Amino acid sequence: MAEIVSDTSWMQAMLDVEAALARAQARLKLIPEGAASEIAAHCRAEEFDMAEIGRAAPDSANPVVPLVKALRTRVGRDAAPHVHRGATSQDILDTAMMLIARRALDAMLEEMQRAAESAASLADHHRTTVMAGRTLLQQAAVTTFGLKAAGWLTAIVEARDALTAIRDAELAVQLGGAVGTRAALIDAGVENELASELKLQRPVLPWHTDRTRVAKLSAQLAIAAGVMGKIALDVVLLAQTEVDEVREGGSGERGASSTMPQKRNPVDAVEILAAVRGTNAQAAIVLGSMVQEHERAAGAWQAEWQAVSGLLQLAGGTTWRGARLLGSLEVDTERMRRNLDLTGGLIMSEGLVTMLAERTDLVTARALVDSAVAKARESGRPFRQLALEDPRITRHLRSDELARAFDPSSNLGSAAALVDRALDNYRAQKRPRSDR
Amino acid sequence: MAEIVSDTSWMQAMLDVEAALARAQARLKLIPEGAASEIAAHCRAEEFDMAEIGRAAPDSANPVVPLVKALRTRVGRDAAPHVHRGATSQDILDTAMMLIARRALDAMLEEMQRAAESAASLADHHRTTVMAGRTLLQQAAVTTFGLKAAGWLTAIVEARDALTAIRDAELAVQLGGAVGTRAALIDAGVENELASELKLQRPVLPWHTDRTRVAKLSAQLAIAAGVMGKIALDVVLLAQTEVDEVREGGSGERGASSTMPQKRNPVDAVEILAAVRGTNAQAAIVLGSMVQEHERAAGAWQAEWQAVSGLLQLAGGTTWRGARLLGSLEVDTERMRRNLDLTGGLIMSEGLVTMLAERTDLVTARALVDSAVAKARESGRPFRQLALEDPRITRHLRSDELARAFDPSSNLGSAAALVDRALDNYRAQKRPRSDR
Amino acid sequence: MAEIVSDTSWMQAMLDVEAALARAQARLKLIPEGAASEIAAHCRAEEFDMAEIGRAAPDSANPVVPLVKALRTRVGRDAAPHVHRGATSQDILDTAMMLIARRALDAMLEEMQRAAESAASLADHHRTTVMAGRTLLQQAAVTTFGLKAAGWLTAIVEARDALTAIRDAELAVQLGGAVGTRAALIDAGVENELASELKLQRPVLPWHTDRTRVAKLSAQLAIAAGVMGKIALDVVLLAQTEVDEVREGGSGERGASSTMPQKRNPVDAVEILAAVRGTNAQAAIVLGSMVQEHERAAGAWQAEWQAVSGLLQLAGGTTWRGARLLGSLEVDTERMRRNLDLTGGLIMSEGLVTMLAERTDLVTARALVDSAVAKARESGRPFRQLALEDPRITRHLRSDELARAFDPSSNLGSAAALVDRALDNYRAQKRPRSDR
Amino acid sequence: MAEIVSDTSWMQAMLDVEAALARAQARLKLIPEGAASEIAAHCRAEEFDMAEIGRAAPDSANPVVPLVKALRTRVGRDAAPHVHRGATSQDILDTAMMLIARRALDAMLEEMQRAAESAASLADHHRTTVMAGRTLLQQAAVTTFGLKAAGWLTAIVEARDALTAIRDAELAVQLGGAVGTRAALIDAGVENELASELKLQRPVLPWHTDRTRVAKLSAQLAIAAGVMGKIALDVVLLAQTEVDEVREGGSGERGASSTMPQKRNPVDAVEILAAVRGTNAQAAIVLGSMVQEHERAAGAWQAEWQAVSGLLQLAGGTTWRGARLLGSLEVDTERMRRNLDLTGGLIMSEGLVTMLAERTDLVTARALVDSAVAKARESGRPFRQLALEDPRITRHLRSDELARAFDPSSNLGSAAALVDRALDNYRAQKRPRSDR
Repeated sequence: MAEIVSDTSWMQAMLDVEAALARAQARLKLIPEGAASEIAAHCRAEEFDMAEIGRAAPDSANPVVPLVKALRTRVGRDAAPHVHRGATSQDILDTAMMLIARRALDAMLEEMQRAAESAASLADHHRTTVMAGRTLLQQAAVTTFGLKAAGWLTAIVEARDALTAIRDAELAVQLGGAVGTRAALIDAGVENELASELKLQRPVLPWHTDRTRVAKLSAQLAIAAGVMGKIALDVVLLAQTEVDEVREGGSGERGASSTMPQKRNPVDAVEILAAVRGTNAQAAIVLGSMVQEHERAAGAWQAEWQAVSGLLQLAGGTTWRGARLLGSLEVDTERMRRNLDLTGGLIMSEGLVTMLAERTDLVTARALVDSAVAKARESGRPFRQLALEDPRITRHLRSDELARAFDPSSNLGSAAALVDRALDNYRAQKRPRSDR
Repeated sequence: MAEIVSDTSWMQAMLDVEAALARAQARLKLIPEGAASEIAAHCRAEEFDMAEIGRAAPDSANPVVPLVKALRTRVGRDAAPHVHRGATSQDILDTAMMLIARRALDAMLEEMQRAAESAASLADHHRTTVMAGRTLLQQAAVTTFGLKAAGWLTAIVEARDALTAIRDAELAVQLGGAVGTRAALIDAGVENELASELKLQRPVLPWHTDRTRVAKLSAQLAIAAGVMGKIALDVVLLAQTEVDEVREGGSGERGASSTMPQKRNPVDAVEILAAVRGTNAQAAIVLGSMVQEHERAAGAWQAEWQAVSGLLQLAGGTTWRGARLLGSLEVDTERMRRNLDLTGGLIMSEGLVTMLAERTDLVTARALVDSAVAKARESGRPFRQLALEDPRITRHLRSDELARAFDPSSNLGSAAALVDRALDNYRAQKRPRSDR
Repeated sequence: MAEIVSDTSWMQAMLDVEAALARAQARLKLIPEGAASEIAAHCRAEEFDMAEIGRAAPDSANPVVPLVKALRTRVGRDAAPHVHRGATSQDILDTAMMLIARRALDAMLEEMQRAAESAASLADHHRTTVMAGRTLLQQAAVTTFGLKAAGWLTAIVEARDALTAIRDAELAVQLGGAVGTRAALIDAGVENELASELKLQRPVLPWHTDRTRVAKLSAQLAIAAGVMGKIALDVVLLAQTEVDEVREGGSGERGASSTMPQKRNPVDAVEILAAVRGTNAQAAIVLGSMVQEHERAAGAWQAEWQAVSGLLQLAGGTTWRGARLLGSLEVDTERMRRNLDLTGGLIMSEGLVTMLAERTDLVTARALVDSAVAKARESGRPFRQLALEDPRITRHLRSDELARAFDPSSNLGSAAALVDRALDNYRAQKRPRSDR
Repeated sequence: MAEIVSDTSWMQAMLDVEAALARAQARLKLIPEGAASEIAAHCRAEEFDMAEIGRAAPDSANPVVPLVKALRTRVGRDAAPHVHRGATSQDILDTAMMLIARRALDAMLEEMQRAAESAASLADHHRTTVMAGRTLLQQAAVTTFGLKAAGWLTAIVEARDALTAIRDAELAVQLGGAVGTRAALIDAGVENELASELKLQRPVLPWHTDRTRVAKLSAQLAIAAGVMGKIALDVVLLAQTEVDEVREGGSGERGASSTMPQKRNPVDAVEILAAVRGTNAQAAIVLGSMVQEHERAAGAWQAEWQAVSGLLQLAGGTTWRGARLLGSLEVDTERMRRNLDLTGGLIMSEGLVTMLAERTDLVTARALVDSAVAKARESGRPFRQLALEDPRITRHLRSDELARAFDPSSNLGSAAALVDRALDNYRAQKRPRSDR
């Protein structure tokens, strides 16, 4: 991903646009065929001295100005006047950004598909693996690891679909000329050719200062990263020494510490959590930069390039890491089961209330359980034991019923059905939207 | 909008959810019909003492705990146990947030429709109104006010469509119980009834810690506000004393100053620009809060309520202000025309290059014009005059051709066609998506 | 805190400024003494209809315009012309903001002092309470709860001192008139009187569009909230069911759940974590709003009021909650000690490396320990046991030395000295800076 | 600045810390003198293969792990065990960050001093240059360009002083070992030596998860950038074609356009405005990352490096650009004077009110002027003319008095005195704080 958004890739993308523009204009007989070939032949990043163009940058508000100048020098006298005909710097840069975005999205979508597949497999495999559901980081009630993974899956699928939709509908050529009015050499026909050539959409209007598509892309990248962040946070928390229910897989030195021999740190999850902070910041730049002046902005547009590059790199990092993390996650089902016992049955107290409520009423049931909970807290004895001994409870529930009340597998509600629902939803949407 | 997101509205929305839940459960014979009626009858905000519930809030992590307690007290002994059956606090709060969001979106979409209509009318009316196109706040080339308004229109239409799609597809009930596993009293059937009752979607899974839908909503609200912000910035800049091409309409004291008799400040535009800063900040909270712990977050979820409320209020403010602003904008076409003359024809220099390039070549043409530009700068004489006197230019262009080169109306490229394209796009999508 | 930043408080603060301005001008014989008294007598929020002034707001870019108008009506014909003499709306609003900020800071600083005292007491009391130090949420090496509390203390002290410095040096009157040039009725003399009257600083220049002081205040409020957030996060993590080393104190229903009888949720910590997300967002608005136009901003200034209000309220909430949290924290030293045993001595492996390195060399020592760690992982047997049995280790260390290596109290490095250093630092700075 | 924060600089800074640590330990006889020399001799970035270390990075949560490994390989067998003794990765990285920050701040402070000098010179030189003061982008009242420059100056001076204070007081060594308890090889004595060696402060405690100093640094960098942003925005607005009161200086191609011959875009100002958006986003990451887990964070710390690097680079860019911009700004005093006439005297209406109020009363005076303003708006005739003809006005003011009322130089209030105050303040603080 670092490569897809590198300085060289940006330069090549800008050259790709210049080449495609010349070819489009030649196809419509607006410039000579020979000039277009000559221009296209030189539109290769390796022909240009990045450092030199970089040195010219501080004196112009964008890198297209020195690049076009250098390209004109390389193509020779006859073709030179046909370089960059009718276009404005922003046409080139914005279209290049769309190309970069598409390449990055293609890579990300593949990783997201891999991540989804791994999450689906975890959901399927751990359909009946009981574990503690935790709210506000307190054990709250029983759930399954399958349902947790199904939740990850559903979020990944939704993010993948939304990014696919953006890739297919929002990435558009920019071709408006100096102030977006278009002129002879960049009319609707040229735009059409350029769009076909670069496999980008045609916008309703040039979008020099309507940054909706960039904002949508950025927001959705941040959302996709956020989805990976939620998974990473769950993993980091489950991997805590005191919880120890999952571990990042991967062999060898991954996660080793420079000082502590015993450490095997969660690496991918931590890096995802770091990257998410970055994606949100970069997305905030882009959203905040929608407010642009007139026909070209004085600052807000210029802030976008680095922000979008950073966003693609960081978000792409989260999906790459996320796919690796989910693909090699080690799950300790035994420990999950044992952690359920930590509270002496307290985690099943809501289920007990429900069961008792069927025999008395909810208010009474809650009061009976509250009293046993209090007694467990005071005495330090297991709640389960106290419940079994409490005549006000055993009056309503037989011992086999109470055993069921304290059996995690009997406290799963619709967890299995929900896993199925999530898997069905995933399988139905497995093929990327655009192929359907 | 302040009313839609007020504390009272939130409380009523939570009560609406409790009422709907009871009715849904009664319809499925899970609780007695009479209890449901009794509960529903008391689910009116005015029956509750907001201040008292507020006083209990600091000791619980959310307002549902004291509200349910108060509701149980009000409904009487028989119905009390049937209040809030199977649901968890977050089920109520999240579903209430969806109700609030829908009401707010309905109001915003109406305002956006009004704003779009006004922008369309400006685009249509000012199709041939020439004005300076400005890049980096410098006069760059000629455009029309119609095309500028068409740009506003296109962005509004896209934001309106995106928000409509979110209203129709993303607002979903939340019903998962303590840890999202659902149980007998809140199974798929109840969820289904609840969704119909409240006219919300059914999600794939309970979404306690999958905040994608809230993030999408928030990002798109920020984008909609950003669209209004771009319009407001254009208006503020065009309304500058030295530019003076548009003014906010509205009668009487609007925009008066406490000290300066002559001032007529742009009020709606300024308030939109202020609000946009707020919407971005609130959206950043929500995006940053996607990373949530396990089955319920410890902080990230609790930060959402105020952020979403604030976002709806601020974004709603921008659309209300934006509709008013566009509906009463005063446009000074005469001043637009006069401002085009400020540079003695320099603003038409790119067109002159293009025209000259047809007779010589682009490089020569640019050199000739550059030289005349430099002379105009040094001498302080009008560029137009110097061009007319320069034999290296007049050798290529006749005086009628030069007159055309300096006629703004001949320098508009495809502006008119683009206005048509924007209006066609608007009219094709005029009916909200969901009605088609 | 909600009260300090309420709409009524803002209105009163604005009236306080108008009253003080009139008195200052009267003292310098610029307006009649009687007019000043009359004005001051009516500068009471309860005399004004907030709702009516609110209704006028949408048509003016700030609330001072309608407020001054209403005040002129109330004071009668003779005094009316002397209301708001020479001042501009922003003078009043900015100075009012400073008054609000000072009141809020006073309250926060008191809470921070209470929080510091509690943290100091925890540090002192738990100087030798061993517990696991955790990095990346993995048990890493032994530390003391005293040192952890000392870390909290040091951060609180620093935040308190920084906020005290801002309160004493950065809160300044604003008095510049329409464009900051000042005129006869608001000259340096009047500014001086006004500053004394309101106990605010005199700035170098009017600061209508130099928002440094507001930015500094906001950033430091966010930092103070961040300090509380770090403490809250530690508490939430230590309070996890599986860790269970601390609990929020407080009696009764604090932290109760609407569904789960056993839950005792961390409430203050969770609310702090929610609030910190808000403070950062509001601070971002203010920092982003430093870029203001000319002599008064079109949007950036108007965005500040709500942001600063929200920031004071949210940051104030974190210090109030933080003081309560630290003042009633329940610490389970026994559990802390037991959790140290969870890894069979692995947490002491770095200490063992250090000890072995003294007899061989660091590289060999690390290799020996790495091998024992690996064996412990494979076999599932306690690391401590394996180390005691490993002749390559026992060759270097006697059994009493090994016992020491596995004694947490022998692995504390300079923890006690660091606690002393933190307490000394706190005690040296106990009296607020401005008193010294 | 890009160089100061480059990957190579970071690696060198980490090696500088390792070298200084070894030397400090040798000085205290904790490791052999020869080992320290050997280590220090190899602590040169050019000895290491950045790409290789980069390739190892994804498998560890930070770059110190592979770097220490590589360093141990290079120094040979005897010295190897003495590399990185007692330190943890974060000790090295955090201290390296402080070194990077100091170098960057030194460079920035020099640029800020140059910027301040230029602003002071503009303030001094243009003490009597009248121009329009503008509020909400409307001409509001007369001011001087000297006062505007004095405002820039005062903000720069304050930002410079605040950054100097941070450089001198907040940049501290980090030396805590695995969990911040310190041990034999990194005790207070070693910390002391290390601090002297690296010319950094000693902190009260190791600050692994107390990020106050990083947050303060980041916030102040954002504030400094914001100060430059305010100047840049003023310049961009004043350089508008329709205002044309200032221009960026600089010769040759600076600000040229790829298509429009006449354009001379404001380049430095635009780039500053772009950079400020970035600094705010990076500062938000750091502020948001204060909430860190236990003794080392899982994500929040890792997000800091890139954020602080980016922040230093972007903020440094704004000061470099800002110094260049102010040092070569071209000011058109003649145009400033002419723009004052655009409103036919309306801009002086507040002064006329004040003058009339001395003869009648403020309310009457305002009514008289309001009426003339209205007449000017309706008739399109100059306000000044209408005032001179209005008997209700001429009854109170003689024609020479009216002439004075409409003379910009008579409407400057205390502008000159304020310029003096700003210059005095600057000169008093000219020597950086730490030298006094």
